[in-house]
Amino acid sequence: MNFQSILSEIDSEVARIPDEGKVASYIPELAKVDAGKFGMHLWHVDGDHCGIGDDREAFSVQSIAKVFSLTLAYELEGESIWKRVGVEPSGTRFNSLMQLEFEQGIPRNPLINSGALVIADILYGRLNDPRRELLDFIRLVSGLPDVGYNETVALSEKQSGFRNAALVNLMRSFGNIRNDIEGILDFYFHLCSIEMTCAELSKAFLLYANHGKIPGREEEIISKSKAKRINAIMQTCGFYDEAGEFAFKVGLPGKSGVGGGIAAVHPGKYAVAVWSPGLNKKGNSFKGMKALELLTTKTELSIF
Amino acid sequence: MNFQSILSEIDSEVARIPDEGKVASYIPELAKVDAGKFGMHLWHVDGDHCGIGDDREAFSVQSIAKVFSLTLAYELEGESIWKRVGVEPSGTRFNSLMQLEFEQGIPRNPLINSGALVIADILYGRLNDPRRELLDFIRLVSGLPDVGYNETVALSEKQSGFRNAALVNLMRSFGNIRNDIEGILDFYFHLCSIEMTCAELSKAFLLYANHGKIPGREEEIISKSKAKRINAIMQTCGFYDEAGEFAFKVGLPGKSGVGGGIAAVHPGKYAVAVWSPGLNKKGNSFKGMKALELLTTKTELSIF
Amino acid sequence: MNFQSILSEIDSEVARIPDEGKVASYIPELAKVDAGKFGMHLWHVDGDHCGIGDDREAFSVQSIAKVFSLTLAYELEGESIWKRVGVEPSGTRFNSLMQLEFEQGIPRNPLINSGALVIADILYGRLNDPRRELLDFIRLVSGLPDVGYNETVALSEKQSGFRNAALVNLMRSFGNIRNDIEGILDFYFHLCSIEMTCAELSKAFLLYANHGKIPGREEEIISKSKAKRINAIMQTCGFYDEAGEFAFKVGLPGKSGVGGGIAAVHPGKYAVAVWSPGLNKKGNSFKGMKALELLTTKTELSIF
Amino acid sequence: MNFQSILSEIDSEVARIPDEGKVASYIPELAKVDAGKFGMHLWHVDGDHCGIGDDREAFSVQSIAKVFSLTLAYELEGESIWKRVGVEPSGTRFNSLMQLEFEQGIPRNPLINSGALVIADILYGRLNDPRRELLDFIRLVSGLPDVGYNETVALSEKQSGFRNAALVNLMRSFGNIRNDIEGILDFYFHLCSIEMTCAELSKAFLLYANHGKIPGREEEIISKSKAKRINAIMQTCGFYDEAGEFAFKVGLPGKSGVGGGIAAVHPGKYAVAVWSPGLNKKGNSFKGMKALELLTTKTELSIF
Repeated sequence: MNFQSILSEIDSEVARIPDEGKVASYIPELAKVDAGKFGMHLWHVDGDHCGIGDDREAFSVQSIAKVFSLTLAYELEGESIWKRVGVEPSGTRFNSLMQLEFEQGIPRNPLINSGALVIADILYGRLNDPRRELLDFIRLVSGLPDVGYNETVALSEKQSGFRNAALVNLMRSFGNIRNDIEGILDFYFHLCSIEMTCAELSKAFLLYANHGKIPGREEEIISKSKAKRINAIMQTCGFYDEAGEFAFKVGLPGKSGVGGGIAAVHPGKYAVAVWSPGLNKKGNSFKGMKALELLTTKTELSIF
Repeated sequence: MNFQSILSEIDSEVARIPDEGKVASYIPELAKVDAGKFGMHLWHVDGDHCGIGDDREAFSVQSIAKVFSLTLAYELEGESIWKRVGVEPSGTRFNSLMQLEFEQGIPRNPLINSGALVIADILYGRLNDPRRELLDFIRLVSGLPDVGYNETVALSEKQSGFRNAALVNLMRSFGNIRNDIEGILDFYFHLCSIEMTCAELSKAFLLYANHGKIPGREEEIISKSKAKRINAIMQTCGFYDEAGEFAFKVGLPGKSGVGGGIAAVHPGKYAVAVWSPGLNKKGNSFKGMKALELLTTKTELSIF
Repeated sequence: MNFQSILSEIDSEVARIPDEGKVASYIPELAKVDAGKFGMHLWHVDGDHCGIGDDREAFSVQSIAKVFSLTLAYELEGESIWKRVGVEPSGTRFNSLMQLEFEQGIPRNPLINSGALVIADILYGRLNDPRRELLDFIRLVSGLPDVGYNETVALSEKQSGFRNAALVNLMRSFGNIRNDIEGILDFYFHLCSIEMTCAELSKAFLLYANHGKIPGREEEIISKSKAKRINAIMQTCGFYDEAGEFAFKVGLPGKSGVGGGIAAVHPGKYAVAVWSPGLNKKGNSFKGMKALELLTTKTELSIF
Repeated sequence: MNFQSILSEIDSEVARIPDEGKVASYIPELAKVDAGKFGMHLWHVDGDHCGIGDDREAFSVQSIAKVFSLTLAYELEGESIWKRVGVEPSGTRFNSLMQLEFEQGIPRNPLINSGALVIADILYGRLNDPRRELLDFIRLVSGLPDVGYNETVALSEKQSGFRNAALVNLMRSFGNIRNDIEGILDFYFHLCSIEMTCAELSKAFLLYANHGKIPGREEEIISKSKAKRINAIMQTCGFYDEAGEFAFKVGLPGKSGVGGGIAAVHPGKYAVAVWSPGLNKKGNSFKGMKALELLTTKTELSIF
């Protein structure tokens, strides 16, 4: 299959769709991004890769990075991690706080904010230097020695992160947060501040497309079983209150971020990343969703 | 791959697991089923099939039949069906009524009770003889001319179906139910009363494993795109508040019923049905879940 | 205190306030009422009474009648009535269904719809001819032999009463409704269809102002203790999600109806009824609330 | 009416009731209180007062102090205070977080934790030395120059106050908290640490029984209208999820605290305080509720 020509078709088709999305504006660093940016890059597990548009420009991956922190925590903690966070979709935002209370401070899954905060707490308790060691892991997975935190973004997130502070305090009241609240929040906001390009992000997600191994290397980063389970979680929980819509229209496990990025994988086949800053009402990239829908339609390949 | 020997292994392994499930007892017909029953049958899209245990004994498929009514309604109504029912997972039972109200009578997906009632309303409005025509469709899909309703079960469901009556009245108050309430409920309770064996059910689900076609026949029953989308809905919404768990442990689209049955598909490969009447706390077959988990572990095949 | 002159002052002051309310329109009979109607009537326990405006024109008392059915059921059933319905305020509408489910079908109080339906069920099960016997009781309390149901209103309510049907079915699923659902709903809709004038309604409410006795008569209709308790329930639960606002601004126990009426009492002193069809956003009479606020401000008499 | 002999009767009757309550244990200082303590004291607006049992022993008034902070904030801020906090009852604990989110960070009333935190924020922003000035106000109202904070209790509350930190952060995310979060929480925890005896507390509450004046003094501390409105709020919101029950059984405006105290007033007549550390399931003093119920039964005096 000629992915380069398919991506080119997608590029021109998406360009004709009016962008109904709105760029995230709760922190200045996200608000000042050019709304017209669009990039897409695909890495096949066999080593081929190709891209279009602004696929070599770095953007704030935001919540997409939660897949990396989950991966590291899962590797360190094993299956006992699921005593502190579930694997079920979360429903609407209005339910989220009630559900967290109803379920005694156990978040529904590790990809919503509350769950990612529990994951941050786990890493914070297990690692000597959480920020550096998480970065080392992401550098290992992505093969990119230069990936780093954007301190300005991290600081901005912190200054407007009252809702996250509410979540972490609520979970602490239930005993499901065990380390210093300020430290966890700082770590979490750094995690969300990571910047990568579509080319880099899709390469890093090959791990999940390739059953836990980096293509071309022998050793497992994570076991095949864990890679499958992380894919399952991305499938059911990766898109806030739009996980079903993404499964329905696109049909691939993936994760979105408010920076306008989406990373997705076709297990056994490829990893893909797309970036367009305008978000739909559910907080996922408007054109990014369209581009991925076109990809699985044109390739006639989805997991379903 | 030798599926027969894999199923045999599963049979003996599942037999050693103590059954923590409880047989559904809200209607007498379900309560009197022998809790020790266990059957499993798998149909490959290439025509091979095999089974174990009580796979040729009929049981009440209950909510599994909602996949058939959804299929027929989707075929008749097209994409406009999604104006009246969503494709998102539903969260906990406590949220369900609140969400239905919050979302103005639009159920989260067509596989929860409220959504299946809207589907029943759509069919009821479009078909001249809803009960007969739905049965004709299920007979066509399954290739089984004798599949039928169990009138005793349908009547029992009706006599204890006050919660469903509440749902349908609530949706009617929002204008999302348009036909006679008594008629819709009667139709819905008949739908849930259908009885099939694991062998029959897995054969009927080949449609979803085979991209909308019955293996060996040329014409599409439903389009490839629709088959994929129904699989996506089963994946995210097919197991009440345990859809994530099923994706995580099993990794196949599927649908369970309170009769203890589960039907699942590996798109492009096979359809499988399992039956064990004991239900776990979330209302899904305890041993059925275990058996399917063993299946994807042993075959090393899941969609993830 | 010269109540007649106070009412006259209120009349002219309220006339100058622009009516921000909207007449209820969910049934035709309520929608066609003249929005400009305004009446108020006050009966003192010592026998004096006075009124202004349209205080001798009958209107649909709607939910105000729930106080009468509660009174009769409380008298018949005694304190065991509180096993089936609570005495707590109900919070917002969104919570109501969730709360009813969370609290296993026990409504928060007897003045919200779900609670009034349980009361209707209790009366329906205890009385030989519920509609006639309830009417007899209201005629006794009010001293009005002609008070009756408006069959057109009752029928209209029934035809649009799907939400009430949802509530009664949900409670039935929890076992807190015990009689025929159609019969209970019919009885309930008749209850809401009663028509009275402000003069009549205030006279009927003297029972609650006068500790359970009709002024001038010796026998207790209900005990002093029960009269106090019904007043307490009106105080905390009589105004949907605006009970606190009414306590805060007016400071009297009372009950409103979507017909635009409000009846209130100052225990030991007087009963008052006001009618103005325009409803505020919470479903209570906009000008009626203002008039009662003026009454307790001008008389410097409230229970607080 | 001979209140002393009524209180003595209550004393002996309450002594015979087995205490079903449990002493609050979330902080060590509350847990170590003697569960057998019982005191009650009543001050009439005409200057008489009497008491029984441990009515001269200081206890932690906890949430009862929220009435004082509300009073001071209301006096300083006027009616604009109601833009930031409502006057409606709050429903169950599960709803509280959802409601706070649904209502955009505006708490339902000033006597639940979230509302009292908004009041603390208002005072914190308006006062130069919040802790000292609030104490001055309470000393003025109570006529007790020695009332003070218990620093050990305040510190303990802080160390286990994660749920309150969650609330304040959530409201900050909606813009309804405007000052330093640490400072507000510290101020709030000090407020809750105040200790008084039943004799002192009932004397301090005379302000609300006496329409805003301290009996025997000329000047208004707060206007008659404000005193009435605070009484109305106590009536509908003073007992967590048991406000209706208290209105129903006791029929007086009041406020409880987890230290086992309850203060209540009969407007125009008296103020009363009772203390018994064992709490019922809703968090209100088990024997305190009984004692007040006996008081209004025996005196045949309630606001209803």
